[in-house]
Amino acid sequence: MNMDFGVDVISEDEYRRQRALYGPLTESVRRLINASLNTVVDADAVAEAQKKIDAIAELLETQQRAGVPMVHEHTGRPVVWSNPAVGLRNAIAPPMVIHHEDDGSCWSEFTLSGAYEGPPGRVHGGVCALVLDHLLGEAASQALTQPKFTGTISLRYRRGTPLGPLRAEAFVERSEGVKTFTRGYLKDANGPTVEAEGVFIQPAWARDAG
Amino acid sequence: MNMDFGVDVISEDEYRRQRALYGPLTESVRRLINASLNTVVDADAVAEAQKKIDAIAELLETQQRAGVPMVHEHTGRPVVWSNPAVGLRNAIAPPMVIHHEDDGSCWSEFTLSGAYEGPPGRVHGGVCALVLDHLLGEAASQALTQPKFTGTISLRYRRGTPLGPLRAEAFVERSEGVKTFTRGYLKDANGPTVEAEGVFIQPAWARDAG
Repeated sequence: MNMDFGVDVISEDEYRRQRALYGPLTESVRRLINASLNTVVDADAVAEAQKKIDAIAELLETQQRAGVPMVHEHTGRPVVWSNPAVGLRNAIAPPMVIHHEDDGSCWSEFTLSGAYEGPPGRVHGGVCALVLDHLLGEAASQALTQPKFTGTISLRYRRGTPLGPLRAEAFVERSEGVKTFTRGYLKDANGPTVEAEGVFIQPAWARDAG
Repeated sequence: MNMDFGVDVISEDEYRRQRALYGPLTESVRRLINASLNTVVDADAVAEAQKKIDAIAELLETQQRAGVPMVHEHTGRPVVWSNPAVGLRNAIAPPMVIHHEDDGSCWSEFTLSGAYEGPPGRVHGGVCALVLDHLLGEAASQALTQPKFTGTISLRYRRGTPLGPLRAEAFVERSEGVKTFTRGYLKDANGPTVEAEGVFIQPAWARDAG
């Protein structure tokens, strides 16, 4: 339902229904992104593929939801399915699912394909930054339930991050007034590859509400 | 042609041919990413779309080039079309074209759509980091002609970056031994939104070759 204050509250059933429906669609779009990346089929085949892709896009464009934020009825958490770092419905996003622990830390285990490659065989440094900025933000905002914006973020690249299975984790170190100090790591099987520190800020409009 | 040292050197003609062929394909995949993001067509239509997308992916997968680096014959520059920050053939990449100036600085003007949204109406902080890490790397490596890896990068978010037309720019401040110190900005029409400093390192294997 669309509440007066412009938020769609969705039930657990509806959440599950949409996840089962749209998650696989995103997977198919991801497969297409990877297939287009290095294809060398001939010009006729490319033209044919392009025509079909445009037709599918046109179909999907016929009915679109407005960009109203969604909130899960039971958990109270925002459902950020269009997010470019973690959105279930955004094929740009690395295929991450974020897990939140009771101590406020969070983590994700996921696999990065060639679509995220910078130097040969390695994850693009900017993709490492995207992943870590998002994880730090999840920790700072208690799973996005608190409004928090990135103030500063610093990343130290210890060594190249290989494509393949990875783990990212983040936690809050301390809070001082409107600032939340966070730290996180991107890791492969041999330990940390990138280390991140981030300061997140509670926006002015949310300060009196506390 | 595939040289002995594992690099494809492509002529200007071949570069233009491939750009004209694959650039529009990437645009169509981008359109599909955006169309899937917020579609609410019914389950039958989603299933139909997914089946068609899988069929196109299967077609494009039949002939794939090996992940051999490409270099432009005349400019000597790497052709990084699969790069997730800037690749002409990577639909994940923000639609950036990087311009290099004679003084070693570089810049790009581009437009970010809802697929890059974090907070409502604003670019995801991690996407800002991806864009700036890439621009700083382009400046540090003289348009990717020198091997340079991100050592550290620090970003300061002055205010939210609105979706829409943006400009990113970067330049080298100084070099000390194997380190190159860079700075850059992400800007909207009202000036900088994010400021970045990055230190890039020449890898050990490239140091003697200098």
